[in-house]
Amino acid sequence: MGRSVETAGETPLSLDDIRRAAERIAPYAKRTPVLRSSSIDEITGASLFFKCENFQTVGAFKFRGAVNTVMSLSADEISRGVATHSSGNHGAALTRAAALRNGRAWVVMPENSSAAKRAAVRQYGGEVISCGTDQRSREETLARLVAEKNCVVIPPFDDYRVIAGQGTAALELLDQAGPLDAVVAPVGGGGLLSGSAVAVSESAPETRVFGAEPSAVDDAFRSLEAGRILPVANGETIADGLRTTVGALTFPIIRERVAGIVCVEETEIVAAMRLIWERMKILIEPSAAVPLAALIRRREAFRGLRVGVILSGGNVDLEALPWT
Amino acid sequence: MGRSVETAGETPLSLDDIRRAAERIAPYAKRTPVLRSSSIDEITGASLFFKCENFQTVGAFKFRGAVNTVMSLSADEISRGVATHSSGNHGAALTRAAALRNGRAWVVMPENSSAAKRAAVRQYGGEVISCGTDQRSREETLARLVAEKNCVVIPPFDDYRVIAGQGTAALELLDQAGPLDAVVAPVGGGGLLSGSAVAVSESAPETRVFGAEPSAVDDAFRSLEAGRILPVANGETIADGLRTTVGALTFPIIRERVAGIVCVEETEIVAAMRLIWERMKILIEPSAAVPLAALIRRREAFRGLRVGVILSGGNVDLEALPWT
Repeated sequence: MGRSVETAGETPLSLDDIRRAAERIAPYAKRTPVLRSSSIDEITGASLFFKCENFQTVGAFKFRGAVNTVMSLSADEISRGVATHSSGNHGAALTRAAALRNGRAWVVMPENSSAAKRAAVRQYGGEVISCGTDQRSREETLARLVAEKNCVVIPPFDDYRVIAGQGTAALELLDQAGPLDAVVAPVGGGGLLSGSAVAVSESAPETRVFGAEPSAVDDAFRSLEAGRILPVANGETIADGLRTTVGALTFPIIRERVAGIVCVEETEIVAAMRLIWERMKILIEPSAAVPLAALIRRREAFRGLRVGVILSGGNVDLEALPWT
Repeated sequence: MGRSVETAGETPLSLDDIRRAAERIAPYAKRTPVLRSSSIDEITGASLFFKCENFQTVGAFKFRGAVNTVMSLSADEISRGVATHSSGNHGAALTRAAALRNGRAWVVMPENSSAAKRAAVRQYGGEVISCGTDQRSREETLARLVAEKNCVVIPPFDDYRVIAGQGTAALELLDQAGPLDAVVAPVGGGGLLSGSAVAVSESAPETRVFGAEPSAVDDAFRSLEAGRILPVANGETIADGLRTTVGALTFPIIRERVAGIVCVEETEIVAAMRLIWERMKILIEPSAAVPLAALIRRREAFRGLRVGVILSGGNVDLEALPWT
């Protein structure tokens, strides 16, 4: 999984793009804090630096890519409105970003997406369009919408403007935490992982970047093994943000710049999520717990290292909790 | 509820005591962050500064008072071990503080205290002694324990060393947030509220300090009205840290230096707790939500003001949540 000779250096996205994205989003996105936990350090045997994107606007890193893209649109484009398909956070992020320019937003969401995430899109003024749970249904529904509204599609991950925006989180993390041996990010469509990989590999070449993925939807892991994109199997995972197949633009970057992908079981994700809630007193969604689950599973490999962990989001469906 | 002529200036605890406590605990306690939430600001119409004692060691402000007291003990005292009665957080805090000096700790806890808080005491190496749920049972059980072990009693709030330690949170808050119009803290036994009142009234006389209390256990409110301590009624509240009657040492300070106490209903506490979980992505326990519930209830009185809110702790019983 090291850099292959054929593709090295070919990524049409550079550290400069990510730095420009950082400047573009600075007035709108939060510079989220980096938190530490001595008791989780003890459990993993590593020194962990948690980048709290659960505190980001709309509760997830997705706001970074959405704002970077929306702020790059022409006046004509934003006046036509934006549309996307999303399991949730990207839809909320895009809606909120579009509102900054008084633009309309339509979000195609699978019918099994969480109530909290659907509510968030509506709360920010976006319109939710329901679709089936498979990739094809998402894409067909979005195509019909675009034909009807003539709106501009902003993909959830397979767009260099989006990827550059997501990469700004890792850039901040390096600045806040100091030198790191590794950075671990969850991988679904691969926007966060590929953006992090560009940011880290070019600004701190000695820092390795790892992806973390639920075994139930291990398309990125299998795709790296195969050397080509293999679609996600129909597995069920509690990490609802990671059910997507890795993208045509994100995959080559991941292949070139990511040191490896660690797969974890559902029980490990739940245990890691609970550990973060309990010890750090912060709310994270299941997808955000996948990197810590990976670090616990591969404890020996990371022992003694300084590791950045991107906590990707905090949009838990609180309706499911007992509020009496 | 203004300062009475008879008692003004008589508090045998000064800002200097709190500053000395701050120095004493600095190597052990965290300087917790102050977080903000634009959406909760919008709901309340005020500018709120949340002092995150839920991130404090042992997950509550109680660690401040416990460390300050333990570090003030003589070598002989710490060698005999320490004991207390506590609904939970003070017990965990005292146990953890005692361990810093290799001291033993016994904690008398009512049988209805949360499983999480009992587990925390044991996890830090303390011994839990169960008692009945009324004040008298707590005190009798503790007296028997002391007779048997010859240990040193560290009260949960009615001790100037403990009060001085708790006051350090408000001191930090003022430093971190800048000038404030008001500071709101929950009131149970009154250690946090009285310590905050001394710290704030002496270092920022223009900042008013308010207590927030569940209506179901409104002994501090009724005591202020009556001008003498009235014991807590047998009401039930979800805010399990606030079931205690205000103390003989804390009450005169509260009477002299607190601008008022706002009482809130159980449903308001749950709604405020949920709001903080949902919008700020942090875990707080019910007692910590009481000040925000008070600010929402008295929205008109605080509109437009800069208000510090002490989030007292984050020890929620996660066993009660659906983890699969």
